Amino acid sequence: MSKFYVALVHYPVYDKNGKIVTTAVTNVDVHDIARSSVTYGVDGYFLVTPVEQQRALVTELLEHWKDGPGATYNKRRSQAISFVRVVADLSEAMRVVESETGQRPITVGTGASLDERTVTHQKMREILAEASSPVLLLFGTGWGLEKRFVDSMDYLLKPIRGKVTYNHLSVRSAAAIMLDRLLGRGLDDI
Amino acid sequence: MSKFYVALVHYPVYDKNGKIVTTAVTNVDVHDIARSSVTYGVDGYFLVTPVEQQRALVTELLEHWKDGPGATYNKRRSQAISFVRVVADLSEAMRVVESETGQRPITVGTGASLDERTVTHQKMREILAEASSPVLLLFGTGWGLEKRFVDSMDYLLKPIRGKVTYNHLSVRSAAAIMLDRLLGRGLDDI
Repeated sequence: MSKFYVALVHYPVYDKNGKIVTTAVTNVDVHDIARSSVTYGVDGYFLVTPVEQQRALVTELLEHWKDGPGATYNKRRSQAISFVRVVADLSEAMRVVESETGQRPITVGTGASLDERTVTHQKMREILAEASSPVLLLFGTGWGLEKRFVDSMDYLLKPIRGKVTYNHLSVRSAAAIMLDRLLGRGLDDI
Repeated sequence: MSKFYVALVHYPVYDKNGKIVTTAVTNVDVHDIARSSVTYGVDGYFLVTPVEQQRALVTELLEHWKDGPGATYNKRRSQAISFVRVVADLSEAMRVVESETGQRPITVGTGASLDERTVTHQKMREILAEASSPVLLLFGTGWGLEKRFVDSMDYLLKPIRGKVTYNHLSVRSAAAIMLDRLLGRGLDDI
């Protein structure tokens, strides 16, 4: 299978009133999605924010876990956090993947309210199995990725549906479920 | 299908040194697991802690979302949080389920390092489909549920495995994945 990357996007996303905003990076998003990524063998996790101060803050947090007190306190946590990368925008994430793999990644957008042009998780598993390019799976914070950003994606993943019509999942939970569906062992072995 | 309940247990669980402790209730655990539970049609979510002050704190937090400023700020969040119940121990959770359904629940334990006596998620889906009793799925905080507590469970769920031998998932992510595997629509429709 090709290399697989995850990104958490803090801009451009919507707030609850449909306004395009930059959300703040949160500690729990960094940790939870890093831990899920390690579990499912993801090759890299990008935190995407245009705010320089936020990038500096996360870089400091990462140092704590990589080399600081955190590394001694909790080795497994340290391992999870060590492959987080902080970038300013999608282009920078794309360049990093390209420099690591020699190829531009296929971009896959996600969102709870996507409806047009979506592919099922099952179909995406097949695409992953056959892809020769790396894949970058993007999650939006706040109320989801902005429409034009979504439209620029190569693929869009069908939203998770439970028993209710609209899912109420946190981005951390949605990311965990999607990684399990896309990269997990499938129902035969669970 | 029978009624399905979830519980997040703060005692008895292990700390990183294998000592039995009571962990603190965290805001993000309350919200994330409540939101996943609503998404998958869970009938109730118990926060289990013997510490009276912690129970009072969570009850206050719940009021904020049910009737206070939170209810107006975010209706969907308010809906998710409104079915959280705060109890002192497993017996109290069992009594609540029994009073609501007329039957004692079947208990199902989870944990990243369980190995003996576990059933697969696939098998548990079959058990759920046939069960006439309600089911209570229990998650441990910290470094997982204490051994004797685990031994008292009717069933134990096979730990989630990704690509690595030991999973690094947060309890929030593990709960989301397990609800998707147990109560989701299955791979045909995702």
